[in-house]
Amino acid sequence: MDGLLTTPLRRIPTPGGHVFHGMKATDPGFAGFGEAYFSFVQCGFVKGWKRHERMTLNFVVPEGEIQVVAHDVDTGEQATFVLGPRDDSTYMRLTIRPGLWVGFGGLGKGVNLLLNVASIPHDPTESSTRPLDAFPWQWVGGQP
Amino acid sequence: MDGLLTTPLRRIPTPGGHVFHGMKATDPGFAGFGEAYFSFVQCGFVKGWKRHERMTLNFVVPEGEIQVVAHDVDTGEQATFVLGPRDDSTYMRLTIRPGLWVGFGGLGKGVNLLLNVASIPHDPTESSTRPLDAFPWQWVGGQP
Repeated sequence: MDGLLTTPLRRIPTPGGHVFHGMKATDPGFAGFGEAYFSFVQCGFVKGWKRHERMTLNFVVPEGEIQVVAHDVDTGEQATFVLGPRDDSTYMRLTIRPGLWVGFGGLGKGVNLLLNVASIPHDPTESSTRPLDAFPWQWVGGQP
Repeated sequence: MDGLLTTPLRRIPTPGGHVFHGMKATDPGFAGFGEAYFSFVQCGFVKGWKRHERMTLNFVVPEGEIQVVAHDVDTGEQATFVLGPRDDSTYMRLTIRPGLWVGFGGLGKGVNLLLNVASIPHDPTESSTRPLDAFPWQWVGGQP
């Protein structure tokens, strides 16, 4: 689906606690630095839907497991991802270009923590929201 | 102590999971964006000491509790901070300018997670390390 990019991230074994990559200014998907913030999401709860006009999102999940869904209303396409630190297949950065409708939900029983490295600072005039039933949401692997 | 800055950060109550601020490009302490990465640190373990020649560090702790100590070898000063999400007094960003020796240790029994929003990407030629006994380390509140 156009406007989405996944980039595998390194998890570096380190005495006393591992180091996990997030984003470098030289990485694919980097579209400028505006703000880095965290969003927690409880197990079974979905935050959505939201669409940004100008902000490129870069999602990284260092703890727990989070499902992300993107909808392209122009093409009718939708795409689903599972992000989390547990293994190589899920520890990745998801870059989302402006214009897509995005939601994310908590899959892990404990803390589900999302870091967004956003290309511009928060600006309420550049984003829109729609209620959760505006687009279909289907949990990966069934209701958590 | 010169070269250190603490900035209180907002924790925004949000249905389904709170939003926690980290860093904006317009915030005090921002010295450019090079890289954002995570460092986990186990309870009772100290990662240190390290000194950067060019990198400004911006430490934010969204989970657990981490003690950070900085030493200025020119003045003999040292400064200690406790970072963590639990209350307003500890949920802050700690900005550390280049040239100081820095260590951090895990205080929380569970996951202790540090985000560093670094002003330049990782470059092994701009940092030095010293063994832990090179400078005094005293746990806040006694050995965790």
